[in-house]
Amino acid sequence: MIFVMSNEATQQQLDAVVGKIKSFGLDVNISRGTERTVVGAIGDETKLDQSLFTVLPGVEQFMRIVKPYKIVAREGHLESTVIDISGVPLGGKQIQVIGGPCSVETQAQMDESAEYVVQAGCRLMRGGAFKPRSSPYSFQGKGVEGLTLFRNAADKQGLPIVTELMDIRMLDTFLEYDVDVIQIGTRNMQNFDLLKAVGGINKPIILKRGMSATISEWLMAAEYIAASGNHKIIFCERGIRTFETHYRNVLDVTAIPVLKKETHLPVIVDPSHAGGKAWMVPALSRAALAAGADGLLIEMHPCPREAWCDADQALNPHELKSLMGELKGIAEAVGRTI
Amino acid sequence: MIFVMSNEATQQQLDAVVGKIKSFGLDVNISRGTERTVVGAIGDETKLDQSLFTVLPGVEQFMRIVKPYKIVAREGHLESTVIDISGVPLGGKQIQVIGGPCSVETQAQMDESAEYVVQAGCRLMRGGAFKPRSSPYSFQGKGVEGLTLFRNAADKQGLPIVTELMDIRMLDTFLEYDVDVIQIGTRNMQNFDLLKAVGGINKPIILKRGMSATISEWLMAAEYIAASGNHKIIFCERGIRTFETHYRNVLDVTAIPVLKKETHLPVIVDPSHAGGKAWMVPALSRAALAAGADGLLIEMHPCPREAWCDADQALNPHELKSLMGELKGIAEAVGRTI
Amino acid sequence: MIFVMSNEATQQQLDAVVGKIKSFGLDVNISRGTERTVVGAIGDETKLDQSLFTVLPGVEQFMRIVKPYKIVAREGHLESTVIDISGVPLGGKQIQVIGGPCSVETQAQMDESAEYVVQAGCRLMRGGAFKPRSSPYSFQGKGVEGLTLFRNAADKQGLPIVTELMDIRMLDTFLEYDVDVIQIGTRNMQNFDLLKAVGGINKPIILKRGMSATISEWLMAAEYIAASGNHKIIFCERGIRTFETHYRNVLDVTAIPVLKKETHLPVIVDPSHAGGKAWMVPALSRAALAAGADGLLIEMHPCPREAWCDADQALNPHELKSLMGELKGIAEAVGRTI
Amino acid sequence: MIFVMSNEATQQQLDAVVGKIKSFGLDVNISRGTERTVVGAIGDETKLDQSLFTVLPGVEQFMRIVKPYKIVAREGHLESTVIDISGVPLGGKQIQVIGGPCSVETQAQMDESAEYVVQAGCRLMRGGAFKPRSSPYSFQGKGVEGLTLFRNAADKQGLPIVTELMDIRMLDTFLEYDVDVIQIGTRNMQNFDLLKAVGGINKPIILKRGMSATISEWLMAAEYIAASGNHKIIFCERGIRTFETHYRNVLDVTAIPVLKKETHLPVIVDPSHAGGKAWMVPALSRAALAAGADGLLIEMHPCPREAWCDADQALNPHELKSLMGELKGIAEAVGRTI
Repeated sequence: MIFVMSNEATQQQLDAVVGKIKSFGLDVNISRGTERTVVGAIGDETKLDQSLFTVLPGVEQFMRIVKPYKIVAREGHLESTVIDISGVPLGGKQIQVIGGPCSVETQAQMDESAEYVVQAGCRLMRGGAFKPRSSPYSFQGKGVEGLTLFRNAADKQGLPIVTELMDIRMLDTFLEYDVDVIQIGTRNMQNFDLLKAVGGINKPIILKRGMSATISEWLMAAEYIAASGNHKIIFCERGIRTFETHYRNVLDVTAIPVLKKETHLPVIVDPSHAGGKAWMVPALSRAALAAGADGLLIEMHPCPREAWCDADQALNPHELKSLMGELKGIAEAVGRTI
Repeated sequence: MIFVMSNEATQQQLDAVVGKIKSFGLDVNISRGTERTVVGAIGDETKLDQSLFTVLPGVEQFMRIVKPYKIVAREGHLESTVIDISGVPLGGKQIQVIGGPCSVETQAQMDESAEYVVQAGCRLMRGGAFKPRSSPYSFQGKGVEGLTLFRNAADKQGLPIVTELMDIRMLDTFLEYDVDVIQIGTRNMQNFDLLKAVGGINKPIILKRGMSATISEWLMAAEYIAASGNHKIIFCERGIRTFETHYRNVLDVTAIPVLKKETHLPVIVDPSHAGGKAWMVPALSRAALAAGADGLLIEMHPCPREAWCDADQALNPHELKSLMGELKGIAEAVGRTI
Repeated sequence: MIFVMSNEATQQQLDAVVGKIKSFGLDVNISRGTERTVVGAIGDETKLDQSLFTVLPGVEQFMRIVKPYKIVAREGHLESTVIDISGVPLGGKQIQVIGGPCSVETQAQMDESAEYVVQAGCRLMRGGAFKPRSSPYSFQGKGVEGLTLFRNAADKQGLPIVTELMDIRMLDTFLEYDVDVIQIGTRNMQNFDLLKAVGGINKPIILKRGMSATISEWLMAAEYIAASGNHKIIFCERGIRTFETHYRNVLDVTAIPVLKKETHLPVIVDPSHAGGKAWMVPALSRAALAAGADGLLIEMHPCPREAWCDADQALNPHELKSLMGELKGIAEAVGRTI
Repeated sequence: MIFVMSNEATQQQLDAVVGKIKSFGLDVNISRGTERTVVGAIGDETKLDQSLFTVLPGVEQFMRIVKPYKIVAREGHLESTVIDISGVPLGGKQIQVIGGPCSVETQAQMDESAEYVVQAGCRLMRGGAFKPRSSPYSFQGKGVEGLTLFRNAADKQGLPIVTELMDIRMLDTFLEYDVDVIQIGTRNMQNFDLLKAVGGINKPIILKRGMSATISEWLMAAEYIAASGNHKIIFCERGIRTFETHYRNVLDVTAIPVLKKETHLPVIVDPSHAGGKAWMVPALSRAALAAGADGLLIEMHPCPREAWCDADQALNPHELKSLMGELKGIAEAVGRTI
């Protein structure tokens, strides 16, 4: 860590900073410039809490030198990680599209959905049994019954399932139902106790980006999971909150190459929640793959206009199949398969 | 709810919208303009899920007519609610300042803090036993032991305590320790299961605004608590996330008068987390009270430069006392006491 | 325009709204719901200034029915416009990449740049003679001399030129130098007098999106140009300002399909300014074309590390050529050529 | 400036950075840590363009040590500047409220406005002759005729006038009319040619913050004016653009103490444009003064509901007078007069 002293800092104030650094067992480099004196801490900077220094009189600025995330960082782990999802590889040359409805509704709806997902060429299925809704008066998901319906439908087609965990007390139930991939939603990206809990199991985790989470906070949220022992983490970009009101969120495609550089873990994109409208999904899906995403999470409903939630953002089965065809060309253009 | 049909919408498409509205038991008003036809749903619009309509061909825009929050709304509850916190009223003419350290460290630190809080003239005390930290490698709070230390220190001074609940599984412990006010932190504002859980108890809840939560989402988060039965909700503005990097967050003072108009519940402000630096706290505190806040949540540490976290944002005891003096003038200027 | 009356609005207040609408020559539809009364204005709503109504007591909300932009709107102009840039078509099946340095430096640098631009397969060249810099102490561009150097270099290669106009007083000079495309920069998107001025000439205009301009404001800025007579407008998305600090801006790819739906005019993307780093340009360029952009504006310098400004965001000649190859595959995947 | 080398940087790459720094005449400090090597440039860092270094292989991060603004900085100019506006001091102990209508409409409206401004106790008057409107089809202001009406009305009451300059070609006219304070609007904060032009005259300039300008960009925009010779600059915070849609902008009160720390120049606030609604103006005005603002810019219209623009954000004369009374108490509480 580097500290810049203000131009009015006294020798005594400088000594206090130096003393504090040394009290943590680190060494010090002092550089006296023409306008400012700069103090560099030499050693393991993770031992230093920046606020203990910025509180000292005379300290004007600081800069962290080393990245605060270790396990998820590509530094020291150059090869990209491929995560095995019950036999389906994510993060390698083959792109994975996870299709399925927003929410589990009925056995028939899930059975049909699973068939269409397979017909479109997807190898993984999504569906929500527990739904985070802005209003307490909206449909909150079928709950445990939904897990049963989903498991039944997916098993008939041999599809691994992806579903969201909201309540830490339901984790055991998720394990009983052998949920193949547990999704942590955007509103829970910094629900640290939940992160620690899924860090203690041996299942792949999709970690959605918080609505206004920085890349750095997102990596640190993943580090929470990793530090608890589970390294099977998949980042999912789903649009960020900005000033723009014409669409629900702004899909941050820049995050894709940046994450691929910062971490060895796979990165997927949810174009359905990003734009919030079905007609935007094809363009955003193409852009995501063109930018280097390892997969997509796409909402499809057998009959969108009868969906119990987010009806206007789901593709119908025909649209999903047609999109999979389009994506083939993009995948090839970036040297991948789908 | 009102739906605007596109200028190319057919009669059939219009009929489909009308039919769908009627299928939910509502009536319809059709207004044919020179460029667009507008359909108004007459009746209880909370029965309608907007996405079931915006998915229909020919629907271009919609607008909600009635506010989605009911219990927390001032509409139908004109009088401001005063919440009794173990004898201390919040939301009335008297402004409350909740002082105390960021985190519970030791018995001595808490005892001293409690004394200084009383000396400064505050009637409520804050302190964190469970800390939401961006990094899994940072100090995570003293946990249950912290509750003991806090309870001891506060009891000696007769101060009701305010502390954050992060993990739903700890709620019973919080009740055992008779925590006077349970705080829901910014990262958990939309942790809906946690909101439902604290909605089931009979203790005042401080609901901090999510880092990028809209006023409407915040009110709906409160509605989650209220709909589960607990109406003792205190809103706490703590700064929002913007593009500005010079300070941690932007304190949204406009939210204060807006909330006071939209809800009958009390509104307080956390100037410490908003600015992120101790020197900004006095100016932000004055602004908050001048804008109409019912209280403040201020970090104070017996010796900030030795604090275990957020050392640079805590006031020292002298600064807190001096600030309380300044705030007296502002309180009087807006016709209140402190 | 539609006005929603508050639940406490009186008959007199309703009458005042109705009277005001009628005073502008429009007709009225009144819909009395169970909780609110809604007033619709029937006729040309562009005659109504919303603030004249929202100022009236009892008016709670309003919604605009018709889009405020006319000439640039796709509504009423379904076919996409192809703009002819001195013989090069923009907005049709062929994608255009505009390459060249950030700023004009010397004749040799511009001559080399022009050669490399042609060798890479680009048909249009960019370069800045007047530079908008955050600091008054930074290099401000070569000015008129820069136009001479640029014109010379481009003419040798038969390349039409694109360059930014900042000062309205320089417009005549730009016309003298026969600048083929005039660029309005992000900081001038709402410099309305400048927009009106370039609306009065017969040259294609690239209108960059303001750093935090909404889609609607951007379309209205274009409408300023169009309303003054010049319909040759090219929208250029260049990244928006958000809370994220890991990269300069967030490239808003969603804006591409949305603009293509809202306007008949071409849409291009500047991946160089969006990300702010050369290594991000290929991923962002691929994403932009995959999302449907009609062209790209890419910075290339014969020797980036000697560039006089933005050295770290320019591609070198080899990288530009290699990127053009990659983009061919993407163009084909979306049914276009490059 | 400080450069952090990546952990894979070679000695050769380090040498290249050192060589480049020395080529600008600066000296170098090298600090080899356990994980990274850090290079500090010693000397006048304003000679260095960061992009010339970040383009070099092996450079991972950089930090600026010295602030890029000089003339406007409080560093080296500790005393606060009081600007004399035709006899009225701004920036001292006395707070100034600048009142008046959004736009100049008629002589009668301006005469009345001027009277009410004086009656309320304001010493300066505002009014727009040239209006920046989002739509080309909206009222664009009365133009030069408006200046005449304004000058006449203000002269009768002996009020100095404040009005916005949009078009650089109108500067001479503004000087002819002896406009007392020239306002640069939010959309022109980075219209650098306009800034240079008003930097060349001897009149106080109100520089409104750009809608999404950082504190640093705003200070640099002021530095443009100052570097051209005019040091009479008044900062005006008017709300920033965020994700929140409940109100037009978010008034950034934190900017007030931060600016007062960074610059010696006066800081005022425009509560009318910030909130966008008249009923919000009193709360925001009180908050601004409580946070340390030197003045306010408030819209008042003799009859708001007949105003030609922004009718819903203007106070009526009675409301302005009443607000001035309220503000007296706040001014006293912060040790000032009004």
